Amino acid sequence: MDDIYFEDVVPGAELRAGPYVVLESELMAFAATWDPMPMHVDTAYAEKHGGLTTPGLYLLAINMRLIHTLPMQRTVIASFGYDEVRFHRPAHPGDALTLTMKWTEKRRSKSKPDRGIVVSHHALANAAGEIVLSHLDTILMRLRNPTA
Amino acid sequence: MDDIYFEDVVPGAELRAGPYVVLESELMAFAATWDPMPMHVDTAYAEKHGGLTTPGLYLLAINMRLIHTLPMQRTVIASFGYDEVRFHRPAHPGDALTLTMKWTEKRRSKSKPDRGIVVSHHALANAAGEIVLSHLDTILMRLRNPTA
Repeated sequence: MDDIYFEDVVPGAELRAGPYVVLESELMAFAATWDPMPMHVDTAYAEKHGGLTTPGLYLLAINMRLIHTLPMQRTVIASFGYDEVRFHRPAHPGDALTLTMKWTEKRRSKSKPDRGIVVSHHALANAAGEIVLSHLDTILMRLRNPTA
Repeated sequence: MDDIYFEDVVPGAELRAGPYVVLESELMAFAATWDPMPMHVDTAYAEKHGGLTTPGLYLLAINMRLIHTLPMQRTVIASFGYDEVRFHRPAHPGDALTLTMKWTEKRRSKSKPDRGIVVSHHALANAAGEIVLSHLDTILMRLRNPTA
C-alpha cells in the first residue's frame, strides 16, 4: 500500500489492521512493569476471577503497534491526544485483536500549509467481534502536495 | 499512607507522585516495541531534530507506574476510560517527571453499594514545571464501609 497522506484521508472510510494475538508472557511482562494489578500479573488470583486480563494501557499499546502496520510512518508528524478512550472489556491471552480505524474529520492547518489535522476513530475487537477498546485520535499529518 | 477508599476521595484535593526519571534505554526499548517512529528510536535522526522524544503512550505508562506508588492497588477495581488525553510536549531522556493527580468528581454506584465512580485529573510535568501529559481518568473504587 502507498503512503497515506492528508489528501488520501476520506472521512467515513475505514482501514483495518491485525489480527494481533495477545501472548500471556507479553501481557504479564508489560503489566509487571507498568500496571502490576493482581488481575494482570497474578495467575493464582486470575484463576479464581475468570483468567488474566489485559491492562487498558496494553490494549492502547497493541492499537499503536497495529497502526504501525499501516503506511503512515512517514506521513504522521504527531498525535495531539486521545478523546473518549473506553476500556469496554478486557482481552485475555490467546485473543486475536483486530483494529478498525475510521477517518472522521480533516482540516488544513491554518499556520502551516504542509500539514493538516485529522481525527480517526479506533476500535479494537476480539475474534467474536466484541469491542475491547475504542477511542478518538487527533493527529497532524503531512500533505503530499502542499502547493497544489 | 493508608489505603485510599471512595470515602477518602475529596474533590479538589491533590496527590503527588514521582519523580520518575526517563531513561534513554527504557524509552528506546518501549518505542521499538510499541511506537517505532524515528524521533523515538533513531538516535542519528533525533540528533538533527532536538533529541530523542518520548512516545505519548510511554508517558501514559509512566503516569500509570506513578499511580502504583499511591496506596490504591487494593481499592481501585477498574478504569472505565480516559478523556481529554493531551500530549502537550514530549519529554526527553533524563527528564524527571512528577505526577499531580487531582480528584474532580465522585458518586456512588446506583447498582452496587460497595463501590463508587471517581474522576481524577492527571498532569505529568517535567522539572521545569512544564506539563507533558494531562488527562482525565474515570475509575471504579471500593468503599471502606458499604453499609455505613
